[in-house]
Amino acid sequence: MSEVKNIMSYETVALDDEKSALVILDQTRLPYEVEVLELTEQKDIWEAIYLLKVRGAPAIGVAGGFGVYLAAKQIQADNYDDFYAEFKKAKEYLDSSRPTAVNLSWALNRMEKVVLDNKDKTVAEIKELLHKECVAIKDEDVWMCRQIGEYGLSLIKDGDGILTHCNAGQLATSKYGTALAPIHLGRERGMNFRVYTDETRPLLQGARLSSFELHADGVDTTVICDNMASQVMKNGWVNAVFVGCDRVAANGDACNKIGTSGVAILAKYYGIPFYVLGPTSTIDMSIEKGEDIHIEQRPAEEVTEMWYKKRMAPEGVKVYNPAFDFADHELIAGIITEYGIARPPYTESLKEIFRKKAEAQQK
Amino acid sequence: MSEVKNIMSYETVALDDEKSALVILDQTRLPYEVEVLELTEQKDIWEAIYLLKVRGAPAIGVAGGFGVYLAAKQIQADNYDDFYAEFKKAKEYLDSSRPTAVNLSWALNRMEKVVLDNKDKTVAEIKELLHKECVAIKDEDVWMCRQIGEYGLSLIKDGDGILTHCNAGQLATSKYGTALAPIHLGRERGMNFRVYTDETRPLLQGARLSSFELHADGVDTTVICDNMASQVMKNGWVNAVFVGCDRVAANGDACNKIGTSGVAILAKYYGIPFYVLGPTSTIDMSIEKGEDIHIEQRPAEEVTEMWYKKRMAPEGVKVYNPAFDFADHELIAGIITEYGIARPPYTESLKEIFRKKAEAQQK
Repeated sequence: MSEVKNIMSYETVALDDEKSALVILDQTRLPYEVEVLELTEQKDIWEAIYLLKVRGAPAIGVAGGFGVYLAAKQIQADNYDDFYAEFKKAKEYLDSSRPTAVNLSWALNRMEKVVLDNKDKTVAEIKELLHKECVAIKDEDVWMCRQIGEYGLSLIKDGDGILTHCNAGQLATSKYGTALAPIHLGRERGMNFRVYTDETRPLLQGARLSSFELHADGVDTTVICDNMASQVMKNGWVNAVFVGCDRVAANGDACNKIGTSGVAILAKYYGIPFYVLGPTSTIDMSIEKGEDIHIEQRPAEEVTEMWYKKRMAPEGVKVYNPAFDFADHELIAGIITEYGIARPPYTESLKEIFRKKAEAQQK
Repeated sequence: MSEVKNIMSYETVALDDEKSALVILDQTRLPYEVEVLELTEQKDIWEAIYLLKVRGAPAIGVAGGFGVYLAAKQIQADNYDDFYAEFKKAKEYLDSSRPTAVNLSWALNRMEKVVLDNKDKTVAEIKELLHKECVAIKDEDVWMCRQIGEYGLSLIKDGDGILTHCNAGQLATSKYGTALAPIHLGRERGMNFRVYTDETRPLLQGARLSSFELHADGVDTTVICDNMASQVMKNGWVNAVFVGCDRVAANGDACNKIGTSGVAILAKYYGIPFYVLGPTSTIDMSIEKGEDIHIEQRPAEEVTEMWYKKRMAPEGVKVYNPAFDFADHELIAGIITEYGIARPPYTESLKEIFRKKAEAQQK
């Protein structure tokens, strides 16, 4: 357990300004190797996001903010136009690493806005403002997760069984996580839950990451293969499903790791509430419905070879490997954000969440 | 493709009477190693069934028949009582290798009946009758699969998309398979199908075996992770689901590889017919409903370690690893047997199937 404690004290994603480095835990090596990467080159940061070394929508956003700040810091230009041109190029480069992750674009656009809003400042001053902004993105992430944890905790009680898919935990954010925030927050208050973690093929984020961080936090954790969720629900072991989200459409359709739609359908069939937990930055009101979300297709080898000593499907066979799917809004009992819980109909309730957010930000 | 052709010409399970050996293709090594095992020791035969080296309900039945014949052949006793006592011990030993597979008990009971019905014969004569009986079990298996193929083929049309789970194919039987029999039979007649094979965690029978035998047969085959089935159905790519079964209860509840119940629920949600294909020997009218079927729990390491270079879930975490679940009869559009297609309500239609079977056997 000592090793585990160390890992819990690491930060998922951090900025080392002195070394001009993005510091991340390499999540593709967990749970059997704990490697902290210090990335200074833009291509290494791009690759870390693309290869899921840093992953989870909020953590990707924080990494994007730190990443583009580090790029800006290295820009030699001393006039605004040249600086902005190079900044823009760096921003677009990072933005291309994960097309489905809205938090990445969101954080990068927020950083760009700092540049655009401060044309009158010197390049050195703009760099300083960019530093403040990326640090703020991370601080807000911690606050956001804590809020989601509070709202989520209000929906469950001590001793409940929770099923989760993929990893929307502390390892996907700066602290607590989103889907797992209620569990970690409950643990701080001495509560106990039974958590069933779908292993989440092909990249096994549930088996490797969720079960790792939950077990490290002393939670009664059981790993299952994705196709066992139906039986676990049928056994009566699950009181609620908590999943994260990569992008939520205006109608409540929630895009998340591949397999999420299946879990939502099973939960509906067994009468178990299915909750989506995520920050408002994940909600994209400009997208009407799930079908309009672009779903990335990933390499076939993730299914046929990754993690394996040998190829485990025959050569020449086709592979379908979508990274995400979406849970239809009709299957979702609630969408839990840092500004409260949206309930159906989401076309109304999500707008209300954004009204609360605007109010809070004006104060 | 030459290697693949060779494999299709191998028999899944055969008897080499001269060598007194059960000959099987080791299915735990496919698709990347083709190893034919010649098993002469009872403990090796027991282990081959337990470790899924030979697998699939019908193939296990055939292997059980050959296995207990080989045991009988070696019995030294020359009087009936001593012979039967040793036969009984050998039978019970083999029967313990897979508690959920009804075909194993069925084949072993059928072999025992030969012994019980021929008390007046010499031990040598009984051994000869046992030989005939186990060969007949295999011949009937080939006929049965062909029949299931014919009935299944009547439910689909050229160009259809079929989703399947686990491997109920030629590799699970003596020829054609059960769930995959319509596909192979259709291929013989020049038809083309698109087949989506769930990889089927934890042991990956879909990725390793179904995609292997289908691809070898020239079928347009796409491997997916189990959790991608929902998206494939949503895309409109699936016209029917075909799965095998390990045991069907009198009410139509169909016990099959873990994950089957989830696929059935998804198919229902998307309005896709879900068919169970299997021989009448798989239907157990003495079992009222799915809940009464004993489900074996298998080792945690199948989930956390098997196929992996390194452990991919943390030490100390719990694992739930049931081998089977069952599709509720309400989710099943039809149960396809060698004596026709049973439709809901199954409490009636399955009895009708057995009436047809009894009639056919009286002719």
